[in-house]
Amino acid sequence: MPEIRKDPVFGQWVIIASERGRRPNEFTLPPNTPTSANCPFCPGREGQTPPTVCERLGPDGKWKIRVVSNKYPALTPDPAPRRGETGPYQSEEGLGIHEVIIETPGHGLHMDRMPEADIADVLSVYIDRVRALKSDPRIKYVMIFKNHGRNAGASLSHPHSQLVGMPMVPTRLSQEIEGAAKYMSERGSCVFCDMAAAELGSGRRLILREGPFVAIAPYASRFSFETWIMPVAHASHFEELPPGDVPALASVLKKVLSMLSDSVDDLAYNLIIHTTPVHAPSAAHYHWHIEIMPKLAHVAGFEWGTGFYINTVSPEEAAETLRSGKKYKG
Amino acid sequence: MPEIRKDPVFGQWVIIASERGRRPNEFTLPPNTPTSANCPFCPGREGQTPPTVCERLGPDGKWKIRVVSNKYPALTPDPAPRRGETGPYQSEEGLGIHEVIIETPGHGLHMDRMPEADIADVLSVYIDRVRALKSDPRIKYVMIFKNHGRNAGASLSHPHSQLVGMPMVPTRLSQEIEGAAKYMSERGSCVFCDMAAAELGSGRRLILREGPFVAIAPYASRFSFETWIMPVAHASHFEELPPGDVPALASVLKKVLSMLSDSVDDLAYNLIIHTTPVHAPSAAHYHWHIEIMPKLAHVAGFEWGTGFYINTVSPEEAAETLRSGKKYKG
Repeated sequence: MPEIRKDPVFGQWVIIASERGRRPNEFTLPPNTPTSANCPFCPGREGQTPPTVCERLGPDGKWKIRVVSNKYPALTPDPAPRRGETGPYQSEEGLGIHEVIIETPGHGLHMDRMPEADIADVLSVYIDRVRALKSDPRIKYVMIFKNHGRNAGASLSHPHSQLVGMPMVPTRLSQEIEGAAKYMSERGSCVFCDMAAAELGSGRRLILREGPFVAIAPYASRFSFETWIMPVAHASHFEELPPGDVPALASVLKKVLSMLSDSVDDLAYNLIIHTTPVHAPSAAHYHWHIEIMPKLAHVAGFEWGTGFYINTVSPEEAAETLRSGKKYKG
Repeated sequence: MPEIRKDPVFGQWVIIASERGRRPNEFTLPPNTPTSANCPFCPGREGQTPPTVCERLGPDGKWKIRVVSNKYPALTPDPAPRRGETGPYQSEEGLGIHEVIIETPGHGLHMDRMPEADIADVLSVYIDRVRALKSDPRIKYVMIFKNHGRNAGASLSHPHSQLVGMPMVPTRLSQEIEGAAKYMSERGSCVFCDMAAAELGSGRRLILREGPFVAIAPYASRFSFETWIMPVAHASHFEELPPGDVPALASVLKKVLSMLSDSVDDLAYNLIIHTTPVHAPSAAHYHWHIEIMPKLAHVAGFEWGTGFYINTVSPEEAAETLRSGKKYKG
């Protein structure tokens, strides 16, 4: 039964989820088999996943996107009663919702090569699920993320994303939001709006601009080829993205992922949607955005333990490499 | 030339160090060759490292511990002038000292198998170097760390540690110190002292106690088999460890690393010494300690981007496994 424990020093929440250790790992299988013989996400094996939460059907009447509960959940809707506080320690119930969005029936059809309209459908499923989870008052934050490639921690290679609805705001997110609020109180503007404007102005760290969205290499990138995608106009909640803007976001996302895989061999990445806590009002200081963190090198103890990253590819070099389509030779 | 950039949202410092990308990677060589044919840390190849900063000699008059500048430094003592602030951005000079401590002439003699007296000498070299760097008023923090195994980001396998003296306190460390100060103001005691007492009392997360030191599996462990070693009695500065206590620390460190390699196949870990900023006075609220973070699984985007870790081996199970010498079967 998952349990959420709070680190008494740093205030960080950790899910202790022993059952999750038994996740399958299919990376002994050949990587690019069109229909992997054992893949539980492939068509025809729907019985191997928990029941469908919802799905979108294709023109053939079969599913093209499936949302299922995570078979090895980090959190659960029915946790054991809260243990509370003991001495220096504090815990919460392991409450939450953990879902998998199977993005396509195609085992090898990764997002950098999916048709834009299909990516747009995946994004609108994300939005639908956030809105659905928002109706549960116990859920304070919904995190959508995608691990691509074994080096990025993906346990299965069939294209999929994950969604976790949790009863608190994760530590780094709340620190980010606090940091943004501090910037606003000192400068009177949204830090993300200022970043977008600065990068559109100078161009050195601009990867691409299309319609309402911009993709940049952040000034203080922690990772080589770290990329952020955000709306140019201020918006605090991802799930309030107007339906008319979804196709443009799909287009930018596809282009960015293609550029990354053109430049970086064997691209592995973690993609996370950063957004405002679901029940919070629209915030002038915080701006939703997608962070794509490629995994080129093992990030070592120094970075990990200190939060003091060492990035060997400047964001200016990364942006130039991506724009020009050059291959990065580490 | 390295540059330190501050993330404008989160306040995190990042070193942009393009030259560091050209570090050698010798993991194409067989892992356990007693003297690796190409290893720049092995005896006889001293010319392949920058000049010796200091060394300890063995009874044969040859070096047994060497401290050298890092050939691929993340920071430098002579940085380019500070760029300052532009729009939402802020940077510092890439000032700092980055040294490598080559722990032994023996290419394969890792710390879990080194003689205790030799480990004690390595620890006293750490202390000497911190005291030496402390004399530079520009240095605010000295981080000592060790990456063991490729999965933990070690670029060379010859046993070594690293030391970085930097002009600011790394973000996570300052958050930890703030968290500890908050605990003190709310509870009137040191959170680390309370943790040590709680774990010695209950035993469930106790790995070992020897003399002045205790090794525990932290209550809110972020990683499977995460282990902390700390003095039972309050102490805020690692470099003020009494010389008489160094042998006991060496003994505990060796035992803990042996227990970890007995239980975890192909153990890879990051080890970091957490201590008070060098010019800060003794702090009642903060307690130095060693954090050992094994790398069993690729930590994925969810954990990374959010600071919300999912640990599939409870610290209770980890402590019991280590105490009993059982093999962990993931």
